[in-house]
Amino acid sequence: MAKSRYEYVKLFEQADQCLRNCWIVVRLDGRCFHKFSSQHRFKKPNDDRALNLMNHCGKAVMKEFPDIILGYGQSDEFSFIFKKSCNLFGRRASKLMTNVTSLFSSSYVFYWKNYFNDILQYPPTFDGRVVLYPSDKNLRDYLSWRQADCHINNLYNTSFWALVQQGQYSLPDAEKKLCGTDSGDKNELLFSQFQINYDKEPAIFRKGSILLWKENVVRKRKDVVVEHVDIIGDNFWTGNSQLLS
Amino acid sequence: MAKSRYEYVKLFEQADQCLRNCWIVVRLDGRCFHKFSSQHRFKKPNDDRALNLMNHCGKAVMKEFPDIILGYGQSDEFSFIFKKSCNLFGRRASKLMTNVTSLFSSSYVFYWKNYFNDILQYPPTFDGRVVLYPSDKNLRDYLSWRQADCHINNLYNTSFWALVQQGQYSLPDAEKKLCGTDSGDKNELLFSQFQINYDKEPAIFRKGSILLWKENVVRKRKDVVVEHVDIIGDNFWTGNSQLLS
Amino acid sequence: MAKSRYEYVKLFEQADQCLRNCWIVVRLDGRCFHKFSSQHRFKKPNDDRALNLMNHCGKAVMKEFPDIILGYGQSDEFSFIFKKSCNLFGRRASKLMTNVTSLFSSSYVFYWKNYFNDILQYPPTFDGRVVLYPSDKNLRDYLSWRQADCHINNLYNTSFWALVQQGQYSLPDAEKKLCGTDSGDKNELLFSQFQINYDKEPAIFRKGSILLWKENVVRKRKDVVVEHVDIIGDNFWTGNSQLLS
Amino acid sequence: MAKSRYEYVKLFEQADQCLRNCWIVVRLDGRCFHKFSSQHRFKKPNDDRALNLMNHCGKAVMKEFPDIILGYGQSDEFSFIFKKSCNLFGRRASKLMTNVTSLFSSSYVFYWKNYFNDILQYPPTFDGRVVLYPSDKNLRDYLSWRQADCHINNLYNTSFWALVQQGQYSLPDAEKKLCGTDSGDKNELLFSQFQINYDKEPAIFRKGSILLWKENVVRKRKDVVVEHVDIIGDNFWTGNSQLLS
Repeated sequence: MAKSRYEYVKLFEQADQCLRNCWIVVRLDGRCFHKFSSQHRFKKPNDDRALNLMNHCGKAVMKEFPDIILGYGQSDEFSFIFKKSCNLFGRRASKLMTNVTSLFSSSYVFYWKNYFNDILQYPPTFDGRVVLYPSDKNLRDYLSWRQADCHINNLYNTSFWALVQQGQYSLPDAEKKLCGTDSGDKNELLFSQFQINYDKEPAIFRKGSILLWKENVVRKRKDVVVEHVDIIGDNFWTGNSQLLS
Repeated sequence: MAKSRYEYVKLFEQADQCLRNCWIVVRLDGRCFHKFSSQHRFKKPNDDRALNLMNHCGKAVMKEFPDIILGYGQSDEFSFIFKKSCNLFGRRASKLMTNVTSLFSSSYVFYWKNYFNDILQYPPTFDGRVVLYPSDKNLRDYLSWRQADCHINNLYNTSFWALVQQGQYSLPDAEKKLCGTDSGDKNELLFSQFQINYDKEPAIFRKGSILLWKENVVRKRKDVVVEHVDIIGDNFWTGNSQLLS
Repeated sequence: MAKSRYEYVKLFEQADQCLRNCWIVVRLDGRCFHKFSSQHRFKKPNDDRALNLMNHCGKAVMKEFPDIILGYGQSDEFSFIFKKSCNLFGRRASKLMTNVTSLFSSSYVFYWKNYFNDILQYPPTFDGRVVLYPSDKNLRDYLSWRQADCHINNLYNTSFWALVQQGQYSLPDAEKKLCGTDSGDKNELLFSQFQINYDKEPAIFRKGSILLWKENVVRKRKDVVVEHVDIIGDNFWTGNSQLLS
Repeated sequence: MAKSRYEYVKLFEQADQCLRNCWIVVRLDGRCFHKFSSQHRFKKPNDDRALNLMNHCGKAVMKEFPDIILGYGQSDEFSFIFKKSCNLFGRRASKLMTNVTSLFSSSYVFYWKNYFNDILQYPPTFDGRVVLYPSDKNLRDYLSWRQADCHINNLYNTSFWALVQQGQYSLPDAEKKLCGTDSGDKNELLFSQFQINYDKEPAIFRKGSILLWKENVVRKRKDVVVEHVDIIGDNFWTGNSQLLS
C-alpha cells in the first residue's frame, strides 16, 4: 500500500515532553492587539467588556482542561497553571500550548457577542508558549511578576488617559508629562489633578483576574470563579493552600 | 521597583528555534471532531461545507503569514509549509505553531456562518505541531503521506456510507463487509453495487485541498488559490517549480 | 575574507540550556566494560583497584569543577551532582556532559598506573548524559536508585562468584542456582554455604562511593573525601545538611 | 523491592534525538589548551607531534565508530562527520557527543608517549558539541569554515612567531606589527623579511588534516588515511564522491 512508503516521515517528529515535577505555565498574548483594540474601539485605559470576555475564555479553557489549577489574566494576556503532576497529552509541550491557545481563540470569537454590541471585524490571533517552573517559589514569583506588570501598566495608563481625556493633553504631551515619574508621583497626580484615588479604581483593572476552582455549595460541584485580589503577598496562598499542596 | 525582583522568571523560558535550512511544517488536527461533526450534523461521508470552511481558514492563515508557500487540507486537519528560509518569529517553534493554530481556530468560528445555516454550538479546538523536513524529498513524501491518507480514508468512508445509506446496512454490518478488502475490492463494490465510479467522485473528497499562491492576472497581485489535484506524482511539482526552488 | 562567507554555519548550533533551579546530574557509564574488565583481568566480583581508580577520576573531576557538590560511583558508572544554582558554561547541557566525560576519561588512562601493575591495553570509553531533577526529593531518590542498584547487583555478584570460585559451580549452574532467589535467600546462601556475612563485606562494594567536599582542618581548605555510607536514609542528609541548603 | 520505588527518576531523562536526514557533526575543542600547550612546551607556531597525536586520536575514534565518514582536525580541535543515515545510539545527541569526546580524550593520554618524550603532566580535557546540517552545501560550508579558520590562524601565527623567533620582536611588538594587516601583507612580510614562502609551509599546518576511509589495496580492507589537502574547492568532493552520495 502506497501509504507505508511515505509513513517514515512521521519519524521526523521530535519529542518535547515537559520535565516532570515542574509547574507548567502556558501563557497567551494577543497578537497586534494595539491595532485590534483601537479598531474595535476598546475603552481607554481599560475596557471591562474586553476583560470579561478574556475571563470567559479563560474559564472555558479551565473547564475543558481541569488539570489547570489557576488562571491569571490581564490586558490581552492570560496565563494558565497546570498542576505539577499533570500528565495531559503526556506533558508534550506542543499539545499543551496549542490546545489551550486554540480553544481560547475560538472562544474569543464565539463569546464576543455576549460582551460587545459592535460586530467583530476579523478573527483575532493569540500566541502561546510553555514555561516550566521547578519550585513553588518560582511559580509564585512568576504570578507576582505578571501582577506587578499589571499594576505598573495600569497606573501608567490610568494617569495617561486621565491627562488626555480629562486634562485635554495631547498624546505626546501626556507621555512627556509622565516621563520620569514614579508610582508616588502618578498617584499624587491622579489625586490632586483629577480627584482619582487610584486605590479605589476597580480591582479588575489594578489586580487583573485570578481564576480558580472553588466548591459551589449550592450546586454541589466545583466551579471556576474569578477574583481580583492580591496574589503577591502570602494571604492568597494561605487562603488557597490547596493550590500548592 | 517590585517588578525587577520577579523578572528573573523570564530566564526560565527555553529556546526552541527550528533548525535552519529545513522545511517547517505546522500541522493542525481537530480535537474530538468525531463528536463535533456529529453534533453539527456534518454530511457523511464528506461535508463540503465543512471542507470549504477549513479551506477558508487555511487561506486566512496563509494571507496573514506569507512565508507559508503551501497548505494542504483534508478532513479535520490542515498542514502549512513554511519556506525553508523562513525567519518569522526567529523560527521559534512555539510562536509558529501557536500563531497558526490560533488564527485558524478563531477563523473557524468567525467564518462558520458563511458555510452553515445551523448555529455553531460551542467553540472547537485544534491542536498543532511543528515538524522539520531537511530535504525536498522528505517534504514531498510528507505531503504524499497526507494525500495517500486522504485517499485511503475517503475510499473506505465512501464505501462504508454507500452500504449504510443506499444499501441499508447497519453500521456494524457495513464495517464487517469491508473488513479485509483492498482498494480494488472497494472500487468494485462501489461500482457493481451502487453504480458509483469512485474516480468520478468530487476531487475535493479524493485528493483533499491544496492551497498555494498564484498570480491573479486581473487584480495584478498574488492570491491564494485552492486546487484538488494529485500532489504525489511529479506533475504538480514541475508545474509549480517555484515551490521547491 | 573567505571566512565570513562560511561563518553562517555557526547559526545551526542549537541552544540546550538546562532549566534553571533544577539539580543537574551528569552520569557516566563505561562502554563495553564487561569486555574491558575481563581483558584487564579485573577481580570478581569486585576489583578494588578499579573502584579506587574510578574514585580518583571522580575526585579529579570535582576538583576541576567545584560546582559539583557530590559524586556517586559504583561499578563502571559515576554520577556528578551540580548545585542547583550552577551557571557553569551557562548551564549548556552539551558543555557540562562533555567536559565531565572527557576529563574523567583522560584521568582514567592517566592514573591507571597508580592502581594497576598490568599495562592498559587500549583507551576506554565512557558515555555521559545530563538529567535534571526539580526537587530535593527527586535528587535524593535518584541517588537512592543508584545505591539500591549497587546493593542489588553486588549481592547477586557476591553470591554468584562465591558459587563459582568457592563452590566450584559452572557459570550457568551458578546462574540457575540464583534464579528466583530474593535478598534473604542470597544472604542465607552466602552465610550457610560460604560463611560469608554479607553485611561484613567491604562497604565500598555494598554501598558504592560517595565523594563530597569536606573541610580539611589540617590544611585549612576544602578537600574531596570519599565515603562508603548509606545515602538512602535521612542520616547522611542531616549530617551533610549543607548539600541541600 | 526497594529499587522500584526510586526507579521513577529515570522518567526525567529527556529525548535528544538528532533530526533525521541531517549530517551530524561532532566537534571537539581542547579546554584551556593555551595553558596546556605552553606547560608541555609545544613548538610554536605549530607542533607536529601534537598535531599527529590529534590525528592518531581522530583515527581511533573513526575506527570505533565507522559511521563517521570524515574527520577534520586543526590546532586543538577535531570535527567528525557522521553519515546522514547514521542510526548509532538511535541518533541520541548526548550519546554521540560523549562517546566521541570520551574516546578521543582517553586516546590522547594513551598515545601521548608515541609522540612526546616529555611526560604528560596532567589529563587534558576536551569539550564536545553536536551540530546538524540539513544539506550537503551546509556541510561543505561547515568544513570550509573550519579550513578557512585554520588558514587564517596559521598565517597569523606563522607571521607572529617569525617576528618573535627570527625577528627578535617582543610579543606585544609582534602583535602591534601585525595589527591591521591582511593576508597579502602577511605573505609579503614573511617573504621579504624572513624568506618564508608561506605556500611552501607544510600542508598539515596550512590545511589541517582530513581523515577519511580509503581502500587499502594491499590489506584488502578499508583504512583511515590522513590527507592535508584543500577541502573548500570542488576537487576534493569530486575526487571523493562517495562521501556525499
